[in-house]
Amino acid sequence: MKILVINSGSSSIKYKLYESTATDGDFGVLAQGGADRIGISGASVDCKRDGKEREHVYLDLPDHKKAINAIFQMLTDPEKGSLARLSDLAGVGHRVVHGGEDFSKSVLIDGDVVKAIRDNSVLAPLHNPPNLMGIQAVYELVPDMKQVAVFDTATHQTMPPKAYLYGLPKTQYTTHKIRRYGFHGTSHGYVAQKAADQLGKPIEELKLITCHLGNGGSITAFDGGKSVDTSMGMTPLAGILMGTRCGDLDPYIPLHIMQTQDMTIDEVGSLMNKQGGLLGLCGNRDMRDTMAGYHKGLEGCTQAIEKFVYEIQKYIGAYTAALNGVDAIVFTAGIGENERTIRKMVLENFCYLGLLFDEEANETHGPVITKAESKVTVLVIHTDEEKVIAADTFEILNG
Amino acid sequence: MKILVINSGSSSIKYKLYESTATDGDFGVLAQGGADRIGISGASVDCKRDGKEREHVYLDLPDHKKAINAIFQMLTDPEKGSLARLSDLAGVGHRVVHGGEDFSKSVLIDGDVVKAIRDNSVLAPLHNPPNLMGIQAVYELVPDMKQVAVFDTATHQTMPPKAYLYGLPKTQYTTHKIRRYGFHGTSHGYVAQKAADQLGKPIEELKLITCHLGNGGSITAFDGGKSVDTSMGMTPLAGILMGTRCGDLDPYIPLHIMQTQDMTIDEVGSLMNKQGGLLGLCGNRDMRDTMAGYHKGLEGCTQAIEKFVYEIQKYIGAYTAALNGVDAIVFTAGIGENERTIRKMVLENFCYLGLLFDEEANETHGPVITKAESKVTVLVIHTDEEKVIAADTFEILNG
Repeated sequence: MKILVINSGSSSIKYKLYESTATDGDFGVLAQGGADRIGISGASVDCKRDGKEREHVYLDLPDHKKAINAIFQMLTDPEKGSLARLSDLAGVGHRVVHGGEDFSKSVLIDGDVVKAIRDNSVLAPLHNPPNLMGIQAVYELVPDMKQVAVFDTATHQTMPPKAYLYGLPKTQYTTHKIRRYGFHGTSHGYVAQKAADQLGKPIEELKLITCHLGNGGSITAFDGGKSVDTSMGMTPLAGILMGTRCGDLDPYIPLHIMQTQDMTIDEVGSLMNKQGGLLGLCGNRDMRDTMAGYHKGLEGCTQAIEKFVYEIQKYIGAYTAALNGVDAIVFTAGIGENERTIRKMVLENFCYLGLLFDEEANETHGPVITKAESKVTVLVIHTDEEKVIAADTFEILNG
Repeated sequence: MKILVINSGSSSIKYKLYESTATDGDFGVLAQGGADRIGISGASVDCKRDGKEREHVYLDLPDHKKAINAIFQMLTDPEKGSLARLSDLAGVGHRVVHGGEDFSKSVLIDGDVVKAIRDNSVLAPLHNPPNLMGIQAVYELVPDMKQVAVFDTATHQTMPPKAYLYGLPKTQYTTHKIRRYGFHGTSHGYVAQKAADQLGKPIEELKLITCHLGNGGSITAFDGGKSVDTSMGMTPLAGILMGTRCGDLDPYIPLHIMQTQDMTIDEVGSLMNKQGGLLGLCGNRDMRDTMAGYHKGLEGCTQAIEKFVYEIQKYIGAYTAALNGVDAIVFTAGIGENERTIRKMVLENFCYLGLLFDEEANETHGPVITKAESKVTVLVIHTDEEKVIAADTFEILNG
């Protein structure tokens, strides 16, 4: 059984073709690639198959339908394609950023689902519309293709009101849907379960804190396998410092900037989303460059790294209080999986929890980077959001 | 030696007259009161002396100068006044909300100080200008009176960059002064020192978390007597849920509300500052009414109380991580000193710190509300911000 996972953005699409290779639900990647610069000059589509050279073709891609059609053609190429025919595809799984309060798990897409995703676009105006374009394109090309939506927000729908309500007039929630939703749910949920497996305990008995640290980053508290709080908010801007996103601010600041610096809503939005974070503090949006500057002792990079680490420490501390203790902390995603120095710096402040850091294990990325007698176990776990989307799609298609 | 403490707001002034009663710097209140509805019809001034009936006079108070003159006349009333003549006053201490980065301690006011307070008005447009009106009025009435400024922000000037920098382009700090400043500094600093005294240890050896919970509220981490982080931000809007202030929000929310609900900057500012908090969630701005609703099981009040408690728990947890442990937690101000149920609910989540709550001691407000064998001591300490202003003024006048 083969399924395609699609992550459809405004001008690019990423895909992975999976095949279920066993009855126990395990599956592997047959091909992967993407379409780039959709609706822009210089568009292209590419495909990489295991052990084969990457194919890369420039062609005109005026819209998402043309782009997905080009991907389908590459996948069904008579000579090199991984699919004999498109009907060999059992279904398509889509990443959808914002499910609002409508979706607490992945679902088979129908008209009602499309409408709900569209209704939630007000909460994610940059993400939900291009996600829908991908769904619509597949529908127009293969009307009877089964499609599944997997939401970034779904895992966090278990949060209690004290974690998701903001201190605003209640109608801002009831009428305008303004609340904490949280993101990276597929990643947090995946590594939380992996951590439980690794600890050899049922997730229902564990207090876990998962740190997804990539270009975007968020931290989640899991109590008995349920997300009870997460650092991102109504949008993916809130929480820790990120590559270009500012994270938490005094909420009066955006208004103050508009008022005193004569900026528009869009300009302040862009300042916070695209010009802040590591980039804003030290001029590098990438953690590797920032880390290099830190090791050289550059002031901006040092301040950026110290703030990045400090905010993670505060969230871990806050969620330990929220959970009244913690059994394990997980580091995942690009920075979490690869930056030893960040992990070491973060963990230096948790002696009070009886956390015993294992310096050597950290050097080789663990997976366990605390000593056997540590009261809190810290794990480094590779995340794989596409695999979760594939797994959910397989499960839903198999009923 | 007698000094007057003044807290000058936009349409009201509060004062307390202190006398130093001993050479060790102890001092008592001779009289206290205020002027109300300055610049509005129905203005009045009042004065209460120990053991005497409160005097209350309606009179026209078009501006701060007239109001302070009326206070001076009441204090020097030949029959009932606490002062024989105005020159018996050694000086006046003023509460000033925002000292920006210019003041890390209290100072004798001169032209440069007035200019710096004025320059910082951009950061506290509702507070610094009326504070300055009080200073100016005293100067015009008694040009040679010594005046001292005590800043809400000064105590927090010891914060490191990782705590005070926001994740915005660096010029927002260097050019526009946008950073965390923190408030309630006189209160936090006072109760932190009181806690050290009570614990019988030098404050330099202690890790303390102070929770100032009043109509406004903030939480501060003290490492060795220095404020290293605090929950309020550039303005007093950030941090925990308050009476009418929203506290922390996803910073995109103010822009989202402007964009989708067609509100102005001022309207959103008012929504967050005056219509949020407890009031926004349950309709009561006062904690006593909210608590009454909670005990009756009303949904809104329950959600408001649970969120209020939860945010305090998260800040205590975060600051415990920031400090890598905590020796003592202090509750102070209206709610902190009086609401047993809030203290109990907050402390329920700190079993992992070895905190042993003393239910009986909590009923009678402690002052110590943890058991002798508790690894973390929790104290209830009465705060007195005017007394700190008086103490600083005495100290500066005595050189």
